[in-house]
Amino acid sequence: MPILLDDIIKKLSLRVIGDLPKNITVTGIGSLKDAKDTEISFVSNSKYIKYLAETKACAVIMDYEALKQELPLKIKFLILDAKNPYLAFAKATQLFYQIENQRSSKANLDKTVSEYFLKFADVDKTPLIGENSILYPGSFVSEGAIIGKNCNIMSSVFVGKNVNIGDNVIIYPNVTIYDNSIIGNNCIIHAGSVIGSDGFGYARDKNGYVKIIHLGYVILEDDVELGANVTVDRGVIDFTKIGKGTKIDNLVQIAHNVIIGSNCAIAAQTGIAGSSTIGNNVTVGGQVGIAGHISIGNGVIIAAQSGVAHNIKDNEIISGSPAFSIKDWRNSVVLFKKLPKLFKTIKDIEKDKALKND
Amino acid sequence: MPILLDDIIKKLSLRVIGDLPKNITVTGIGSLKDAKDTEISFVSNSKYIKYLAETKACAVIMDYEALKQELPLKIKFLILDAKNPYLAFAKATQLFYQIENQRSSKANLDKTVSEYFLKFADVDKTPLIGENSILYPGSFVSEGAIIGKNCNIMSSVFVGKNVNIGDNVIIYPNVTIYDNSIIGNNCIIHAGSVIGSDGFGYARDKNGYVKIIHLGYVILEDDVELGANVTVDRGVIDFTKIGKGTKIDNLVQIAHNVIIGSNCAIAAQTGIAGSSTIGNNVTVGGQVGIAGHISIGNGVIIAAQSGVAHNIKDNEIISGSPAFSIKDWRNSVVLFKKLPKLFKTIKDIEKDKALKND
Amino acid sequence: MPILLDDIIKKLSLRVIGDLPKNITVTGIGSLKDAKDTEISFVSNSKYIKYLAETKACAVIMDYEALKQELPLKIKFLILDAKNPYLAFAKATQLFYQIENQRSSKANLDKTVSEYFLKFADVDKTPLIGENSILYPGSFVSEGAIIGKNCNIMSSVFVGKNVNIGDNVIIYPNVTIYDNSIIGNNCIIHAGSVIGSDGFGYARDKNGYVKIIHLGYVILEDDVELGANVTVDRGVIDFTKIGKGTKIDNLVQIAHNVIIGSNCAIAAQTGIAGSSTIGNNVTVGGQVGIAGHISIGNGVIIAAQSGVAHNIKDNEIISGSPAFSIKDWRNSVVLFKKLPKLFKTIKDIEKDKALKND
Repeated sequence: MPILLDDIIKKLSLRVIGDLPKNITVTGIGSLKDAKDTEISFVSNSKYIKYLAETKACAVIMDYEALKQELPLKIKFLILDAKNPYLAFAKATQLFYQIENQRSSKANLDKTVSEYFLKFADVDKTPLIGENSILYPGSFVSEGAIIGKNCNIMSSVFVGKNVNIGDNVIIYPNVTIYDNSIIGNNCIIHAGSVIGSDGFGYARDKNGYVKIIHLGYVILEDDVELGANVTVDRGVIDFTKIGKGTKIDNLVQIAHNVIIGSNCAIAAQTGIAGSSTIGNNVTVGGQVGIAGHISIGNGVIIAAQSGVAHNIKDNEIISGSPAFSIKDWRNSVVLFKKLPKLFKTIKDIEKDKALKND
Repeated sequence: MPILLDDIIKKLSLRVIGDLPKNITVTGIGSLKDAKDTEISFVSNSKYIKYLAETKACAVIMDYEALKQELPLKIKFLILDAKNPYLAFAKATQLFYQIENQRSSKANLDKTVSEYFLKFADVDKTPLIGENSILYPGSFVSEGAIIGKNCNIMSSVFVGKNVNIGDNVIIYPNVTIYDNSIIGNNCIIHAGSVIGSDGFGYARDKNGYVKIIHLGYVILEDDVELGANVTVDRGVIDFTKIGKGTKIDNLVQIAHNVIIGSNCAIAAQTGIAGSSTIGNNVTVGGQVGIAGHISIGNGVIIAAQSGVAHNIKDNEIISGSPAFSIKDWRNSVVLFKKLPKLFKTIKDIEKDKALKND
Repeated sequence: MPILLDDIIKKLSLRVIGDLPKNITVTGIGSLKDAKDTEISFVSNSKYIKYLAETKACAVIMDYEALKQELPLKIKFLILDAKNPYLAFAKATQLFYQIENQRSSKANLDKTVSEYFLKFADVDKTPLIGENSILYPGSFVSEGAIIGKNCNIMSSVFVGKNVNIGDNVIIYPNVTIYDNSIIGNNCIIHAGSVIGSDGFGYARDKNGYVKIIHLGYVILEDDVELGANVTVDRGVIDFTKIGKGTKIDNLVQIAHNVIIGSNCAIAAQTGIAGSSTIGNNVTVGGQVGIAGHISIGNGVIIAAQSGVAHNIKDNEIISGSPAFSIKDWRNSVVLFKKLPKLFKTIKDIEKDKALKND
């Protein structure tokens, strides 16, 4: 579905460098290298400036002040100036995407939903499904669940008892949401993720492990996005919480009673052990491990593959396993490679000393 | 569903310090900080003693001998004495939980089950489903499968051919159990887990990889619990086995032909490569990697993020990647941070030596 | 289903040492230790030679020239000579396996499929399903999807809009394939895997993260196998691609716009960050992390738990986090354990120096 370039410019508050031709329609967004002449493109990484000379894109979003010295002499595209071209690009992707695209033919599905509830739910505990929300065939919604407006609950999703889902939520196929979970507005949960599984908690007696039944639940605040095959355990007796606007990548593990603040970004395959607290605006790289019962401050940045075993103060940047200041870690890591040389030097000094002492 | 405090005390063999008021009913379990006055609580970690002064809980499980010096002067709650308060807490959670809570309205489901088998299974290979076991809609049970009594097979679960499942087993939604798997009594398998997938085994010829078809299977002995999105590959020609009472956390990978003993605890995101053997009572931290074809003794403890590449003897405690004695590892890790200082010292010594030699 | 030994020998091009008895039928493949007398076995790892004296297998595949000195004096089995016995074993497993074994009773399923599409799909956008392909109940195929011949799409699989699946593809239960994905011929996708989820891409404005809608897709070329619970994100505006014959183990994460070459093997729990390029014939151990926007050459081998942050040239073998030449890494790692001794030596030298200077 093509969009008028003029509309894009207005919606993204872009500044046009030069004259804007009238009635240009745009069919999509392409990379500088591969865009067609009916598509727009963008530069947000200096690595890709070299493609500006040859791009076929009809218009390119860029930070004009920053790039104007580096532009090729002859350009065929319209320059669309933005202070944060990556943000403008993000907003452009949203113009070209429509929630309807995500849905299979609605009419058929709606019919299925009503059939579905006639079949499987107790009438007096019938789940409440908001206006314009659809359930794909094969999804299962338990008694007492409440689902808001404009939601997309796709196939083979399980929604447990008394789960409460807000408005405009997308739940991709094969997601499992255990009983009593609370999912805020605008959340997106990718395929295969599990919310509210029992935490890893056992007491030990002489015969082995005694299971601690997890009586708690999970809260996802508004605007949370979970990647694919993520696991979020529910609280032991209280809750596990992921704060407003926080984004979680694929295959991340969030243990019982973890509390994560707002607007964090946690990359793939990271694990956070039980009862730890993560502040706001925290950035965590991939494959990081965070121990249980610790506290990570606001604005902390943790490099990929780090292992964090102690409390971390606000705004620290750390790396390593165990993790410490990334600056110091870089110094140590460089020297780790030089250990063989160092050991040789020491040996030489000792040999020298021994000779002198002879 | 409230329970008489008297009953809790009897079932958990607790000793009451002071007088027990009659006919108190308890509505649940809360943390010291958040418990209501109709709930009981517990102390098992000295970190939380500070909340004893202010808790509203009507009774608190604790190790009285250990804590009596630290109790606030005025306490409003009843003290319930237990040598292992965490174990008593674990047992208390079980009193407040009922298997029926897990189930959607049974009558409806039972009808679905019978419809289901009329539709999809060969009559003469109809799976055998034990008394009081229920299958949620959307689950699929293949020919020749046998499911015991009192099982809960939830929605979108796949049970392969000739799978044998014991009694009192809970299988959460979206679990896949490949053909010929054997699941013992009282096992719990959380959502999204996969049991019996092909192992990662290929021979190589000049054109690329040639797949080794995995003809083996998986055995989970009694009382095993698997977290969410766990993967357990089946044996190449024999089996992969997880021993009685062993507990596995979320997102763990168990490769083909691994043999794990009884009463082990393996934390999230750990991976165990093919044909390795793990003893009994082994504790493995999160994100550990264990190489293939090695043997880990009984009672071994492996710290989080370790990488184990060699056999480990009984009762060792190891850390690091590659892993060695945790005591030695801690010494080395502290010095890793001091490498820049060390290199400077050496440089100074050499400079000094050079000066003297001049 | 037993196979004539003669047929196995012909199909695997084995050389018989000694005389081949006539009309022997083989019922399966066993390990040397556990094979029955109607089964064949193999030796590909010198660790298992010790079982040759006692095996009950009727015939054993081995590299006769390499092993003949080590054979026990009296052997009861027939020797089947192969230069690459592991490859011969791989091919033997394929003889004993039949695609039909994987399928539930076809007739019933076929009926379900047609009912299914009458119910859920627009007639004019009805997915095209090739000859002899079956869909299990509970699978969902969206409008515009095309599925080739001889495919097995198992229960609770979701196939998005306009997905294109080749011939002879096996998709195990609970797999999710997002819109527009392209799956080549002979691909195998194990249970719980997710193909085409949104990548982890956001721009940041003052209020928090702004989602980049992922308009791209995923390409799996022919003969790709994905393990269980793998995640492959789709491209931002272009594609993510896994090359012909590449094999991916369980719980691996492939981020948006990653391009992987042909005939690679990537072990469990590895993660590859966005826009990185992996060459052909690359071998990656378990739990490896590969940073974004880097390039790994052809034939590279990366040891388990490594962290790769920079471009790697063809045929390098690397280890460590951060990773460097495995030879150098081994030298440094050995010395890491000796750091306490080294620090003591330095202290002694300094003390000695101080004494002399006194």
